[in-house]
Amino acid sequence: MTKILVLHGPNLDLLGMREPDIYGQETLADIDARLTELASREGVEITIRQSNHEGDLVDAIGDAGQWAAGILINPAGYTHTSVAIRDAIAAVGMPTVEVHLSNIFAREEFRSRSMIAPVAVGQICGFGAESYLLGLQALLEEIRKGSKTEEG
Amino acid sequence: MTKILVLHGPNLDLLGMREPDIYGQETLADIDARLTELASREGVEITIRQSNHEGDLVDAIGDAGQWAAGILINPAGYTHTSVAIRDAIAAVGMPTVEVHLSNIFAREEFRSRSMIAPVAVGQICGFGAESYLLGLQALLEEIRKGSKTEEG
Amino acid sequence: MTKILVLHGPNLDLLGMREPDIYGQETLADIDARLTELASREGVEITIRQSNHEGDLVDAIGDAGQWAAGILINPAGYTHTSVAIRDAIAAVGMPTVEVHLSNIFAREEFRSRSMIAPVAVGQICGFGAESYLLGLQALLEEIRKGSKTEEG
Amino acid sequence: MTKILVLHGPNLDLLGMREPDIYGQETLADIDARLTELASREGVEITIRQSNHEGDLVDAIGDAGQWAAGILINPAGYTHTSVAIRDAIAAVGMPTVEVHLSNIFAREEFRSRSMIAPVAVGQICGFGAESYLLGLQALLEEIRKGSKTEEG
Amino acid sequence: MTKILVLHGPNLDLLGMREPDIYGQETLADIDARLTELASREGVEITIRQSNHEGDLVDAIGDAGQWAAGILINPAGYTHTSVAIRDAIAAVGMPTVEVHLSNIFAREEFRSRSMIAPVAVGQICGFGAESYLLGLQALLEEIRKGSKTEEG
Amino acid sequence: MTKILVLHGPNLDLLGMREPDIYGQETLADIDARLTELASREGVEITIRQSNHEGDLVDAIGDAGQWAAGILINPAGYTHTSVAIRDAIAAVGMPTVEVHLSNIFAREEFRSRSMIAPVAVGQICGFGAESYLLGLQALLEEIRKGSKTEEG
Amino acid sequence: MTKILVLHGPNLDLLGMREPDIYGQETLADIDARLTELASREGVEITIRQSNHEGDLVDAIGDAGQWAAGILINPAGYTHTSVAIRDAIAAVGMPTVEVHLSNIFAREEFRSRSMIAPVAVGQICGFGAESYLLGLQALLEEIRKGSKTEEG
Amino acid sequence: MTKILVLHGPNLDLLGMREPDIYGQETLADIDARLTELASREGVEITIRQSNHEGDLVDAIGDAGQWAAGILINPAGYTHTSVAIRDAIAAVGMPTVEVHLSNIFAREEFRSRSMIAPVAVGQICGFGAESYLLGLQALLEEIRKGSKTEEG
Amino acid sequence: MTKILVLHGPNLDLLGMREPDIYGQETLADIDARLTELASREGVEITIRQSNHEGDLVDAIGDAGQWAAGILINPAGYTHTSVAIRDAIAAVGMPTVEVHLSNIFAREEFRSRSMIAPVAVGQICGFGAESYLLGLQALLEEIRKGSKTEEG
Amino acid sequence: MTKILVLHGPNLDLLGMREPDIYGQETLADIDARLTELASREGVEITIRQSNHEGDLVDAIGDAGQWAAGILINPAGYTHTSVAIRDAIAAVGMPTVEVHLSNIFAREEFRSRSMIAPVAVGQICGFGAESYLLGLQALLEEIRKGSKTEEG
Amino acid sequence: MTKILVLHGPNLDLLGMREPDIYGQETLADIDARLTELASREGVEITIRQSNHEGDLVDAIGDAGQWAAGILINPAGYTHTSVAIRDAIAAVGMPTVEVHLSNIFAREEFRSRSMIAPVAVGQICGFGAESYLLGLQALLEEIRKGSKTEEG
Amino acid sequence: MTKILVLHGPNLDLLGMREPDIYGQETLADIDARLTELASREGVEITIRQSNHEGDLVDAIGDAGQWAAGILINPAGYTHTSVAIRDAIAAVGMPTVEVHLSNIFAREEFRSRSMIAPVAVGQICGFGAESYLLGLQALLEEIRKGSKTEEG
Repeated sequence: MTKILVLHGPNLDLLGMREPDIYGQETLADIDARLTELASREGVEITIRQSNHEGDLVDAIGDAGQWAAGILINPAGYTHTSVAIRDAIAAVGMPTVEVHLSNIFAREEFRSRSMIAPVAVGQICGFGAESYLLGLQALLEEIRKGSKTEEG
Repeated sequence: MTKILVLHGPNLDLLGMREPDIYGQETLADIDARLTELASREGVEITIRQSNHEGDLVDAIGDAGQWAAGILINPAGYTHTSVAIRDAIAAVGMPTVEVHLSNIFAREEFRSRSMIAPVAVGQICGFGAESYLLGLQALLEEIRKGSKTEEG
Repeated sequence: MTKILVLHGPNLDLLGMREPDIYGQETLADIDARLTELASREGVEITIRQSNHEGDLVDAIGDAGQWAAGILINPAGYTHTSVAIRDAIAAVGMPTVEVHLSNIFAREEFRSRSMIAPVAVGQICGFGAESYLLGLQALLEEIRKGSKTEEG
Repeated sequence: MTKILVLHGPNLDLLGMREPDIYGQETLADIDARLTELASREGVEITIRQSNHEGDLVDAIGDAGQWAAGILINPAGYTHTSVAIRDAIAAVGMPTVEVHLSNIFAREEFRSRSMIAPVAVGQICGFGAESYLLGLQALLEEIRKGSKTEEG
Repeated sequence: MTKILVLHGPNLDLLGMREPDIYGQETLADIDARLTELASREGVEITIRQSNHEGDLVDAIGDAGQWAAGILINPAGYTHTSVAIRDAIAAVGMPTVEVHLSNIFAREEFRSRSMIAPVAVGQICGFGAESYLLGLQALLEEIRKGSKTEEG
Repeated sequence: MTKILVLHGPNLDLLGMREPDIYGQETLADIDARLTELASREGVEITIRQSNHEGDLVDAIGDAGQWAAGILINPAGYTHTSVAIRDAIAAVGMPTVEVHLSNIFAREEFRSRSMIAPVAVGQICGFGAESYLLGLQALLEEIRKGSKTEEG
Repeated sequence: MTKILVLHGPNLDLLGMREPDIYGQETLADIDARLTELASREGVEITIRQSNHEGDLVDAIGDAGQWAAGILINPAGYTHTSVAIRDAIAAVGMPTVEVHLSNIFAREEFRSRSMIAPVAVGQICGFGAESYLLGLQALLEEIRKGSKTEEG
Repeated sequence: MTKILVLHGPNLDLLGMREPDIYGQETLADIDARLTELASREGVEITIRQSNHEGDLVDAIGDAGQWAAGILINPAGYTHTSVAIRDAIAAVGMPTVEVHLSNIFAREEFRSRSMIAPVAVGQICGFGAESYLLGLQALLEEIRKGSKTEEG
Repeated sequence: MTKILVLHGPNLDLLGMREPDIYGQETLADIDARLTELASREGVEITIRQSNHEGDLVDAIGDAGQWAAGILINPAGYTHTSVAIRDAIAAVGMPTVEVHLSNIFAREEFRSRSMIAPVAVGQICGFGAESYLLGLQALLEEIRKGSKTEEG
Repeated sequence: MTKILVLHGPNLDLLGMREPDIYGQETLADIDARLTELASREGVEITIRQSNHEGDLVDAIGDAGQWAAGILINPAGYTHTSVAIRDAIAAVGMPTVEVHLSNIFAREEFRSRSMIAPVAVGQICGFGAESYLLGLQALLEEIRKGSKTEEG
Repeated sequence: MTKILVLHGPNLDLLGMREPDIYGQETLADIDARLTELASREGVEITIRQSNHEGDLVDAIGDAGQWAAGILINPAGYTHTSVAIRDAIAAVGMPTVEVHLSNIFAREEFRSRSMIAPVAVGQICGFGAESYLLGLQALLEEIRKGSKTEEG
Repeated sequence: MTKILVLHGPNLDLLGMREPDIYGQETLADIDARLTELASREGVEITIRQSNHEGDLVDAIGDAGQWAAGILINPAGYTHTSVAIRDAIAAVGMPTVEVHLSNIFAREEFRSRSMIAPVAVGQICGFGAESYLLGLQALLEEIRKGSKTEEG
């Protein structure tokens, strides 16, 4: 069974209370429930982790190198500066999709640069909780394409 | 019935022959067929237009202001410089989703800046033809949320 | 009889519906009517053209080289990037006045740089439709000064 | 009766002798005469002040907050660096039009940035003494629009 | 018989009347005649196209992908900003030579950056009409080298 | 009783031994004692936390959202890069005062940019341990103003 | 008796009427009254000066070199560009504290750079009139530390 | 006996599996073994620590201030942004040598700037595991020079 | 008799007391005495003015346009930002020599850019009071060359 | 008989062995032979010089001022930084053509800026050894045009 | 027997007298003696060359292409600008190690960029004469790895 | 007897023929004669050297460390890039004065940055040959001040 690591970066635990005009009113539990439901529909297993610690995210990615087929990550505040997360993703070398709740290009200038995007398969942003669901779909599609290529 | 304008920017008519390692081997007709199928499944009507002319894209967006509920656009080469397309989207004021076949953040530096993204709802890139399908889903979801809000 | 080319750049056909808090509620037809009236009062003939196509604007300027005494242009979205329009104006070498409805210096950073201004006689911005009328006056004054100099 | 403050910035007292190829041959007295004549035709009262001192210009603007309906200013050499003048204009909160004799976009790079423009209604440059006359017209129009809005 | 597409960008139709101190006094017809003569001497067939429309140039390049062996292009005003033309050249993947009449490095700063050059075989500038003739020679040589390699 | 969170960022545990010419000779315990004394005089309760971990600071801020009325923070080395701490402060939306022992504007260039300041009420730097005491006063004043507004 | 110079920069005479959402509703007289009261409580003598003239501020600082023990300054609009005020402070070599009513880091980009801060003891901003009172406290503390050091 | 702290930054636990073309095929255990062997030959004691957490590295450096004579550090992904690690090294004030497996100057632009290097004795990069061994030698030499100076 | 205006910019009245390690121990009176002596030896008349007000310097330059043959100026703190002084010098169009006591290129980065130098004949810096004496010599030489040219 | 100086900059003596994928497999002797043959066909005399020393190139250009009608130069590694070569070319004031074997715009960013190009007639790059032959043709044409102009 | 070229760049002949606080008190002869001793211990032959001429360094590198197995270079003042030395190293394609006596990252900003590092195997800086000895070790290790690879 | 080294940088041997509108009509021999005469009047001995080779200038400075009391240098084209010359001057540690014939601040942007100035005593530019004479005076004065200080 395909296994996926879902990573929520810093402050996402505050979702719902945090600036609802930017991030929406759903809580992280809401999003996780929708992700779990989609995963179950798609027949894949997801492991979800939230942390405010850059190092935890790096640990989790490195560890996923042992068991996961892909990573869905919202690096949140670490998006713009974390070389460590970028290097972890490159190190494990597995398909990774970057998502954001808000449209990072319509906010402060510094939010429009992602250190993660260049090592991800792709990026989805601006659709609120929907970004995660679309991201999971995209990731699964990517993994399927990959295995077809290997099988062929 | 909800109507959507799908816009393909410059050189997308060459898909399939154009740098397949970057853009994949599907042709634009393949993508359009998949979009049409998804639209039909979702019960919406899509009008598709490709042009290499920035002005054509601006014309089409302005015109869509009369009849469409949303726009799905891959501005391709005009992504990085077109104030005219940006202004057209802002002018018609309808939900717009920006998509890209390739991961624009993993290529030349100049491709990582989009003039369009700040006026779009969100951006999806890096998943090949899949970017369009995810984009259409995201756009429809956005339109539904909008009408609920208005109705409510 | 002195002949003037008036050029409206991209999205100006949408005036009135387009972001009225920035661009005002007059339509382009309203502005054209006021320009025509002023021209008639001043005893000059104006030809008005709107296009969303950069190439059309370039064509029109090149063509005006055959018959016009001056150009009044609102390059809109092409203001900030169009070397082609700049070169066309320099090529025909006739007095050109650049106008903008909004105050381009009070908006996004990228709008404060005009590629056109360095080859224009001058620039007028921020006064809504009034910018055009002031621009036409300025242009006619400039043409009169020029012919006096030549006659003298 | 509508009262307007007209401010001439540094070195404008030297007009006529100062680089005539850039600034023209009219003296400041000539310009003031033409402004006075226009004001009288328009039925408004103008008070004119020239100073080479940034602080004098700031004083004058602050003082105008007590009695004027609008400001016409050529900040000259202080255009590009004066936060104090910018803040004064924002503080009194009345319609202000910025004018320049020369086309500031066709000269040294540093002249193309105005600290004043973002807090002005608009900017007019490049038409010599004519810039002032057009500026006064624009300012009066702006004031009239404003009072209509308030009355309505 | 080897077929070549020759593309003239915006404002080149004005050659001869346009700033003769920068661009020389030959007309575009003169240049085309000299190119045709050289092509005939070299035993190749050339198709010449001028347009002020970026989209036309993109169309023409995409179309040439069906029949031409190489492209000689003077992108003129689109040189410095057109990602669309750059992408078209990369898409058709055929040898392309970029030429300029004037020395683009001895003019305004913005003219020294070409978006096209990185995807061209090489660039020739500064020799007036001669730039085209040298460019055609260079292109033919390149095509010959290429076919030798393929044959070998 | 008003509750305040006091956060000391990385390396502040080394105070006293750390570069005494820049940071002074008081230890963190000395500063905490003075803060506690001031808090007690002002009738407020403070909770003090020091950590070298960015994630700990983010955790603490998020947690304070449940119980505190304001935050006094010296983000130290995370001042210049931490989007995560900035986002946490914005998320909990409570008055936050940023303090620094040294004058960050009189040191290396990179220290003069704070990622935190734009979301704080204000910033105090350069007065050694005194910065904290002034900061606590400022924070309490701010909280009092806020409650007056709400009561009113 | 310790003597302090308090300097208010340009436009601070307009306080109360000037953009109250940014600068608050207290007038400069209110602030001066509170400063005088605090000074009297602390047993020091303060001399207060407001000017819109950069040169006046420079004059006053140079003059204070003869009689004052420290300077409290809000350089307002001259904060970001005045080398002359910076040099004056460095020249007299006495403790100087820089204050701002608003949070200069949460406004336009250009306001976040202070030319004065690197030669001041420290900076306090964002607390409205409170910034001055905190600044005076900080300055007096600094002067006391200095005299202890000298005595010791 | 001289004691040295060896610190491995984020993702170095993945060595061997991580991008072997960049980082080589040795594991971190291999490197640690070689370092231990060298230390034993040189008669010094080394304590080795790897962490993906910036805060752990800061903790460890601060702690080493109590017992170590020098630090050998590969800050990996934190090299380019960590002010906290830089400050920790400056705070403990002991000789520190920075090493990198890969040549950081031959990779992405952002990797060529080290925040750590300015407070280190020196930097060694590009020699794979060898960088560590050379770094340990350099550090010991530095410590010996230092103690000679102190003894002398 | 040749007449020269000597202008001392802001804070030069503090010379001798002001940072003697940078500016030396001579007072402005000392420098003026040496300049007067040299002028008398050279048979020219000098008028000396010091002001901390940018506007005073502009006034003085404009006024000198009526009677002086050249200007010797140390713009001090206004060197780096004053467009007004630059424009005044350009306006009067007479030979101007810029001098500085200290080596402005060996201090803070911002001091190495002079707004005045491009309109001066030349610049002399770094030689303390000697800079003025050399500057006066250079200016007189320049004036002599100029008059020879005119006579010839 | 027309005499031409051909200058090869640093490392061109290594051609053939040096990175053949960038510079091709011809040796410098091959290129010189082809240039000599072309020169003989064109009835001109060429003097060829290669040096790795910037100063030698400057010497040779200065010397050519005595006897040559034009210069063909590949400044190689000195292209991007040498003000001395640029000044030498400007000093002798004779037609100079700059050539490069590789397409300098398709390599590292720093190679796309030429210090030489602004003082050359034009630049040719990207055609391998062919660049030299085209360059010689261009230079001869330029010299012929020049002499016609002078004769006429 | 393995042969190594050791290159000392400009001003290294002055070592010992040159700024001993930055570069130490050893002379170049001392360093050469230590290098020779190490080489002899390692059983390799080194040829040492010092020159102040960029061209000499380029010549020596090109020449070493004929006989050496690797290069140890301290490019000194040419480190930051020399494309010619960079190209020479790339051309001969042999392992090259860059060393510096001082920590180039702890000095003026411009010293932190090396043009040479991207084409070297690695860089060692900050350890005085020790940098050379470590560099020679690193180079020999690199050469040994290389030959093992080839043999294997 | 005080001995001075005078160094002329690249292309100064061409003086008189080289762009006389920028550099004047005097030859280098004329300048040398005037310098020799001044030196003899001042009772000092000067040794003059011109070279187009950066390395020669570095050699000469290093050598002057043995016998000269000061250096007068016009680094010409090497002014803007030569770290080697800068380092040589810093290494010999003797008073050095930098001179330029033209006003380097009134020409191309890149000429306004001198790498040499920060290590020189001062800089004189813009006065043609006079710059050298003033520079020699300034240098001698500096040397005299230095010896007085040492004697005292």
